[in-house]
Amino acid sequence: MAKKIAVLAGDGIGPEIVAEAVKVLSFLNTDMALGLSFETALVGGAAYDAFGTPLPQQTLNLCKNAEAVLLGAVGGPKWEALPHAVRPERGLLSIRSELNLFSNLRPAILYPQLVGASTLKPEVVSGLDIMIVRELTGGIYFGQPRGIRLLENGEQQGFNTLVYNESEIRRIAHSAFKTAQKRHKKLCSVDKANVLEVTELWRQVVTEVGKDYPDVQLSHMYVDNAAMQLVRAPKQFDVIVTTNMFGDILSDIAAMLTGSIGMLPSASLDANGKGMYEPIHGSAPDIAGQGIANPLATILSVAMLLRYTLNQPEAAERIEQAVNTALDAGARTPDIYSDGTTQVSTSGMGDAVLNAL
Amino acid sequence: MAKKIAVLAGDGIGPEIVAEAVKVLSFLNTDMALGLSFETALVGGAAYDAFGTPLPQQTLNLCKNAEAVLLGAVGGPKWEALPHAVRPERGLLSIRSELNLFSNLRPAILYPQLVGASTLKPEVVSGLDIMIVRELTGGIYFGQPRGIRLLENGEQQGFNTLVYNESEIRRIAHSAFKTAQKRHKKLCSVDKANVLEVTELWRQVVTEVGKDYPDVQLSHMYVDNAAMQLVRAPKQFDVIVTTNMFGDILSDIAAMLTGSIGMLPSASLDANGKGMYEPIHGSAPDIAGQGIANPLATILSVAMLLRYTLNQPEAAERIEQAVNTALDAGARTPDIYSDGTTQVSTSGMGDAVLNAL
Ligand SMILES: CC(C)[C@H](C(=O)O)[C@@H](O)C(=O)O
Ligand SMILES: CC(C)[C@H](C(=O)O)[C@@H](O)C(=O)O
Repeated sequence: MAKKIAVLAGDGIGPEIVAEAVKVLSFLNTDMALGLSFETALVGGAAYDAFGTPLPQQTLNLCKNAEAVLLGAVGGPKWEALPHAVRPERGLLSIRSELNLFSNLRPAILYPQLVGASTLKPEVVSGLDIMIVRELTGGIYFGQPRGIRLLENGEQQGFNTLVYNESEIRRIAHSAFKTAQKRHKKLCSVDKANVLEVTELWRQVVTEVGKDYPDVQLSHMYVDNAAMQLVRAPKQFDVIVTTNMFGDILSDIAAMLTGSIGMLPSASLDANGKGMYEPIHGSAPDIAGQGIANPLATILSVAMLLRYTLNQPEAAERIEQAVNTALDAGARTPDIYSDGTTQVSTSGMGDAVLNAL
Repeated sequence: MAKKIAVLAGDGIGPEIVAEAVKVLSFLNTDMALGLSFETALVGGAAYDAFGTPLPQQTLNLCKNAEAVLLGAVGGPKWEALPHAVRPERGLLSIRSELNLFSNLRPAILYPQLVGASTLKPEVVSGLDIMIVRELTGGIYFGQPRGIRLLENGEQQGFNTLVYNESEIRRIAHSAFKTAQKRHKKLCSVDKANVLEVTELWRQVVTEVGKDYPDVQLSHMYVDNAAMQLVRAPKQFDVIVTTNMFGDILSDIAAMLTGSIGMLPSASLDANGKGMYEPIHGSAPDIAGQGIANPLATILSVAMLLRYTLNQPEAAERIEQAVNTALDAGARTPDIYSDGTTQVSTSGMGDAVLNAL
């Protein structure tokens, strides 16, 4: 039986970059007899336009039945005025929640070929390799009650709830400690325990779970300080684990330290290693359809898919090495172009990786 | 009648840096006949040690009766194991709330003399001058319900509430637009309106208030993108307005872009211009008592006090210019020392500013 990969291109540059990633994965599928089949479906604004919802039932069914989901990006100005419940982002958030993808791995890696792209001084970021583990199905993103209500005095009030149960904290902590064990065995848990009770519980549970991982060095940091430290001395970090909202912010800071967010993949995993894989950048509607988007973040997301869901570390490494080779050869989409390198299109970059394979 | 200034030195390096700031303010008080009197009180860990509470009633009374509060810093490892309600930070949060100091102004300015201290490339940060306006008495910091409860299944659950009323958003928006009017007339409101209903309301109210300020150019940004943009191209910002929690994080990023958080003051204001003034850095217990802390952030907080509460812009500028002169003359505490400058102590820096006056 073929293993099904759900391919959701989404909006904006999504279709262009996903096409290159599928090209690469298809090649390996044949070359290494991985036994994969691909099935596409609509999500986000594209799904809303066709079906009036950002996550049609058939797309959700496909995701549930597939081994893994490969996603491009969702959203764009076209859908910004829509009501909350049918906005493209809701499609993404619903997949995360419906598939129980609670563990979001966001590596921030600086490619030596691109050290000049960072706005930080080379000595501060060269060799940067951080992994952010973000809790993805809880916290203030999904907490109830939430909404906007009318008070008796006639004014409106907006409210959201930040909530975590012990078990939610425990499972993301285990995921983070295990990730740290495979890396440099340092885990920093980020919270705001001096102000927020829910992160007081967070700190307590992460500390408890840490007793199962005596080989991992655990530290705790307040979120404001962590944001500072990412700018001041990012290489002090190995793995960071944090809540959904803090993870959204910190992972974007970490990504921007590299100067090339067009290069960074992500994995969102459930308890059994099933996952959704997507670039961390958005749908970039301003450059959509021009063939200039960087497909490497999506191609590297395929490498994560091979590693985390399909248990094919060798195939994952082949992709990562091919990306390196393409960069060494000087291939650059416009976002990472610099003097002395060769500008290529979206599909040109896909081809460069394919050639290197 | 003398105008009373409440002086709360707090913990760690608090007493040392506040002493220098009071030295500077006392000089101007005589020199310019400002008619100020000073009264000290305990806050934070020091107050807990003496009275069992981080904000004794007499300290709160003094703050309420004073024209303005000058604060050093609170907290330290000594008090970290205390229960939430009596932790040093609670003293600070209670003053903010009891005095209705809803508008927190946090400038991030890069001093040309210190451009090398930034971890960012000089061309990215030179001339940086951002003002962050953070809502300070609402949001998730103070929202009810909050706490940790035991669920029926035996596990603990932590919860906090992010809540804003229209009127709370409206007053901080006015404060931010007015601030922008006195600067470069650009205001960026930061929210997470694509996920959190409360910030959907935030965006709507800020937009409405903006109609009263047609001369100010208003934009909106999601918090994850704002964190990124602060690292990518911080000079695109003039004034940023945001919620309590997002402001805590973003103002620390902005501060760290300058590389010298020992230089940055802050003001927390009520509706009538009464305020608390403090450096943005913490109590730095590791260097307390050694006479090496940088007093300039606190001295510059005095300049803000003169400008915003006492309506003495001339006196404020005299301090700011004196700080510049001291830096030009090469005076540096260890945190900002570099080759070719002169290392001075905490009081040595205070004297350098005093001499320049
Ligand atoms: C699009 C948005 C809902 C999403 C999030 O906030 O999680 C995005 O910023 C991300 O980080 O994947
Ligand atoms: C000490 C702490 C409670 C405080 C806050 O989170 O507001 C501090 O980080 C600040 O920014 O003033």
